[in-house]
Amino acid sequence: MMNLKMNYLLGLCLFLLVQLANAQDSLKYVDAKTLVTIGKAKATEQWFQRIDSNETVTMPKTVQGLAKNSAGIAIIFETNSPVISAKWTLAEDKYMANMTPIAHSGLDLYCLKDGKWQFVSPGRPEKGALNQSQVIIRRMDTTMKQFLLYLPLYNSVTNLSIGVKTESVLKAPQKVAVNKAKRVVIYGSSIVQGASASRPGMAYPAMLQRQLGMDVINLGFSGNAKMEMEVAKYLATVEGDCYVLDCIPNQAPEQISERALPFIKYLRDKRPKTPIILVETVIREHGYFDQQVGNSVRKQNENIHKAYQQLLKENYKQIYYVPATAFMGNDHDGTVDGTHLTDLGFDRIAKAVAKEIEKARAKD
Amino acid sequence: MMNLKMNYLLGLCLFLLVQLANAQDSLKYVDAKTLVTIGKAKATEQWFQRIDSNETVTMPKTVQGLAKNSAGIAIIFETNSPVISAKWTLAEDKYMANMTPIAHSGLDLYCLKDGKWQFVSPGRPEKGALNQSQVIIRRMDTTMKQFLLYLPLYNSVTNLSIGVKTESVLKAPQKVAVNKAKRVVIYGSSIVQGASASRPGMAYPAMLQRQLGMDVINLGFSGNAKMEMEVAKYLATVEGDCYVLDCIPNQAPEQISERALPFIKYLRDKRPKTPIILVETVIREHGYFDQQVGNSVRKQNENIHKAYQQLLKENYKQIYYVPATAFMGNDHDGTVDGTHLTDLGFDRIAKAVAKEIEKARAKD
Repeated sequence: MMNLKMNYLLGLCLFLLVQLANAQDSLKYVDAKTLVTIGKAKATEQWFQRIDSNETVTMPKTVQGLAKNSAGIAIIFETNSPVISAKWTLAEDKYMANMTPIAHSGLDLYCLKDGKWQFVSPGRPEKGALNQSQVIIRRMDTTMKQFLLYLPLYNSVTNLSIGVKTESVLKAPQKVAVNKAKRVVIYGSSIVQGASASRPGMAYPAMLQRQLGMDVINLGFSGNAKMEMEVAKYLATVEGDCYVLDCIPNQAPEQISERALPFIKYLRDKRPKTPIILVETVIREHGYFDQQVGNSVRKQNENIHKAYQQLLKENYKQIYYVPATAFMGNDHDGTVDGTHLTDLGFDRIAKAVAKEIEKARAKD
Repeated sequence: MMNLKMNYLLGLCLFLLVQLANAQDSLKYVDAKTLVTIGKAKATEQWFQRIDSNETVTMPKTVQGLAKNSAGIAIIFETNSPVISAKWTLAEDKYMANMTPIAHSGLDLYCLKDGKWQFVSPGRPEKGALNQSQVIIRRMDTTMKQFLLYLPLYNSVTNLSIGVKTESVLKAPQKVAVNKAKRVVIYGSSIVQGASASRPGMAYPAMLQRQLGMDVINLGFSGNAKMEMEVAKYLATVEGDCYVLDCIPNQAPEQISERALPFIKYLRDKRPKTPIILVETVIREHGYFDQQVGNSVRKQNENIHKAYQQLLKENYKQIYYVPATAFMGNDHDGTVDGTHLTDLGFDRIAKAVAKEIEKARAKD
């Protein structure tokens, strides 16, 4: 009898201990849509895609696909939880030789500290899984903090929820530390989309967003951004305090001569007072050896520079120009593959473009 | 009859055109072992592995495996071919959330230009393949040039051959632009092994090798480098003009207090005149939020600093010290995941460590 009672009490203790352990690990998940979203040009039916599919129908097929990627989109929230976790669903099992899985399919968490966004930790995607679930950070103190969570650069996210301890607060901040009323809109190629940052927060539009404290809209389309008029028409409908056109890399030199002026003039016509910053293409590092690539890149930059000079001649105002020499460094080591900037290269281009944006804003 | 002749002539033309096209693309492959190999501590039975398996039997099991990786090994050759191609066989189909496939399983080509090594282009691994074959660069001028090809950082290579145009010269250079007689030996963790460089040439030992023009031996073992005496004994047998000990990241603070002094004293005893450079662990960026990690990293660096001061007190000479503050930057953005330096972080640590090596050499 005594033994039975003892066994019962021991069993109860064990049950309670297991419950306690579960409670310590128990997290509640909140749909990220209910928090604050930044980095989006406009509302979309699919929350985590950059341009609504209704608005891309006239654009090139590949742009229609890439517009679904979550590059540049980030979620802002406040919590006092010691743990932050995330569950996210990816559209594709991606492989990119020149990018880390964290960058193309992972998450990247920052925290507001002394008025600045500071890197916390990434959400690492597991191999081959479309449904991802990861604890991003644990064992934090339980003061209330504001966080910024960047979404994948080269994948599409159909669901995202953020997990915190059951007893903690998780909410949209009352005072968001990114000025959503001030926006920089960047139109560009794979480099703008974020190849090859080490993680989503190291794509240069994300760096600019943190440096300037403004909302930055990433309209980078890998292998594209060829200044089609359909895209100019869309771009002119996107509210912006500054447009950055980093769309030289994938255009043939002759395309630049044909398309740059009509594209820029259209945008200026629709947005008469908004500064436009033109960015030369990265100088392909392999172009110092592959003579065909070297010549082509030289002509690309010559032709966008000619277009810029023509605009000045025609008395266009508020047009700014960032030459490649301002951001290529002098070590030839800023890219992973000759074309796509790494964090080292992105650090340089972000500084060069930020300088022009500040110049434009000072004149505003 | 006329028709038959015409058909015959047409057929002949077609045959000759196909032959011509094949000739233009036809490459000859040379086994990389017959060229110049750098970055190896000693000769090994398996050419592209870092330490011979006979010498790792007493080391931890994981170190035995990692010693087979090709981190830090590079091939030097001369060619006047307009095309350079490579075929390489990998031991594993690797996935790393925090590294690019180019870095963990790819190749990285540099060329000697005006006395400096300049990045050319990487060898991109295809998804899932163990037998890789890639054209790395094409359309170069046909002057004779010296090249440096880095091997994968986190995979093992069982075969490597380099392809050039059939009619071109491919040979070991008479005057190799890396001084193989001067060697820096770096013992460390995943960071030394190269996580998370964007490509093999951006691991910091490789950067040092190019900056100093010396042979740099990468003895970085991911998740390891815990100053075991077995490793000290091996290290002392490796010829070096300077030893860099960047082996704090994976040791518990108490292990450092126990092991650092005996390890360093053993090495100094066997190599009385060779400078030893101690490097603090990277400050884990997530440790600014995860309090347990933050405290642990602080103690790790306190303990290696105490060991350093003890050595000075005991009048040890030629001991140098690189504090983490010398290479962490002030943007908190030098890592991919809080621990592993990116190209941005590696650029900083390479400069900081190079400065100490130069200081040590000046005293030499």
